[in-house]
Amino acid sequence: MAVYTDVSDGALQVFLRDYDVGVVQAFKGIAEGVENSNYFLSTERGSFILTLYERRTKREELPYFLALMAHLAAKKLPCPLPVARRDGGFLGELEGRPAALITFLPGLSLRKPNAQHCARLGRVLAKMHKGAKDFPNIRLNAMGLASWQELIGAVGAQADTLMSGLSARLGKALERTRGEWPTELPTGTVHADLFPNNVLFMGDKISGLIDFYFAATDMLAYDIAICLNAWCFEPDGAFNVTKGAAMLKGYQAVRKLTPDEITALPALCRGAALRFIATRLYDWFHVPPHALVRPHDPLEYVRKLRFHEDVVDARDYGLAE
Amino acid sequence: MAVYTDVSDGALQVFLRDYDVGVVQAFKGIAEGVENSNYFLSTERGSFILTLYERRTKREELPYFLALMAHLAAKKLPCPLPVARRDGGFLGELEGRPAALITFLPGLSLRKPNAQHCARLGRVLAKMHKGAKDFPNIRLNAMGLASWQELIGAVGAQADTLMSGLSARLGKALERTRGEWPTELPTGTVHADLFPNNVLFMGDKISGLIDFYFAATDMLAYDIAICLNAWCFEPDGAFNVTKGAAMLKGYQAVRKLTPDEITALPALCRGAALRFIATRLYDWFHVPPHALVRPHDPLEYVRKLRFHEDVVDARDYGLAE
Repeated sequence: MAVYTDVSDGALQVFLRDYDVGVVQAFKGIAEGVENSNYFLSTERGSFILTLYERRTKREELPYFLALMAHLAAKKLPCPLPVARRDGGFLGELEGRPAALITFLPGLSLRKPNAQHCARLGRVLAKMHKGAKDFPNIRLNAMGLASWQELIGAVGAQADTLMSGLSARLGKALERTRGEWPTELPTGTVHADLFPNNVLFMGDKISGLIDFYFAATDMLAYDIAICLNAWCFEPDGAFNVTKGAAMLKGYQAVRKLTPDEITALPALCRGAALRFIATRLYDWFHVPPHALVRPHDPLEYVRKLRFHEDVVDARDYGLAE
Repeated sequence: MAVYTDVSDGALQVFLRDYDVGVVQAFKGIAEGVENSNYFLSTERGSFILTLYERRTKREELPYFLALMAHLAAKKLPCPLPVARRDGGFLGELEGRPAALITFLPGLSLRKPNAQHCARLGRVLAKMHKGAKDFPNIRLNAMGLASWQELIGAVGAQADTLMSGLSARLGKALERTRGEWPTELPTGTVHADLFPNNVLFMGDKISGLIDFYFAATDMLAYDIAICLNAWCFEPDGAFNVTKGAAMLKGYQAVRKLTPDEITALPALCRGAALRFIATRLYDWFHVPPHALVRPHDPLEYVRKLRFHEDVVDARDYGLAE
């Protein structure tokens, strides 16, 4: 959570000349997103998020993310809508960074989602998968299996300073995942980072899905595995099967899982845990001395991985037989 | 700029039960203020800033600051209005911190204020001094001369690693300021931190004065000296006498300076420069390894001090004869 690039009032005014949003009423840097700089912008025409894309987000990939948001918003998914410039494009430049304006969505992200929230999340995830079915653009998942190996490999034996034997343990888990990783499951566009802080609720209803900057073309069920990891564990590390059951039931009310997807779910959950271990572990040992972001705890996901390693089949996640 | 304390949706809902602000529509941590955690809160009744006071702000002093804002807002100064709880108090508790809700003010802070903005600032500063005349509360300025000596003393010879000879130079400047520091000037309530980032403009008009957490009872002209330092130097370090003249003229259009205040202005400007050198220097050498705030450059104010050291009288700041 940070603002990496400071935006002067003068630069903002110049940037906004290309948009038809009227007079600025408020502009505040917000402590949201770890990769980019985000500002809350209020004008006489409405409220917006202004994002400046920092070095970790590749400029050439931005059109994909913005087109996806526009596509999903057009399908009535509660996604931010990129605001078109006067020239029709979505992307501008501000303080030397690529920048875009998207609509501000109301709602609160939940610290402790309950089973009902998980059910809603399952439904909206399936709706997103369905809504993106005719989205024509393709993006390979840069955060796929190969990248986990690379990141965990880069940390190497250093990992053992965090937890004794961790390096060997992760090596084994990667090997297992390489062997069992499915390749024939239904693919489509996945969010790939749908943590509770990227989902907004108004009361019990989902009012916003945000932060599409990890979205990619990948196995749809992998998105479910990420959500099971991010939404259904308790703070004490235990998997809450009631929440898992609610999420899977919500998802299947909109899109039925195939038998192959059901069979692959434990492997996908192990992979999803490894994916977040990989980036968290790498960031843990590579935080620059004056970073504005606190690294996430990699061990949280090591504990989740341990649960998945003992899972027999999808029923352990609450899937109804 | 940071959010030090994370507020969960659940804790927020409990906190807001004590206020009559209606249903929450948005809640975002904002990257503003270096001392406290600030959130933008939007509800069906309006927009607010929710502040959690961190360790550097003393709990027992909060009623002073909140009462001052309420006093000035009642005098039609563009200050945030603390929102009263159902029990009539201004102060609540959230995530273990004292917390208050204040109204959100529209406007943008300016990176490069021009002479006209400086004139407006001068006027509003004088209006604030007048408006606070019957504010009955007293707060000694914790950031007075004694604190500068203490902070600069704590850094000691370390300062020379930043600039050769700096430690001795500051020692001499402190000695001069001790000798020339005025004691008989008109006193009242000063903002004491009215930097451009604490002043909001809508177009060319001032729409907000914010961040009163350094306000204190002190010499009114010292507040002007702080503003001359903060508003009237160019990025290349040169003092812009046109801006100084505009600010002083704006101020005097509302409140005439006394002859003693005019005589003391150079000494007050030297002192104001030392005050910001002191905190910036201390913070520079005491930033914790995982701080979320980048320290300000102390040398910016060393350069400003050098200008003030050569000033002969208030005419050098643009005061009309």
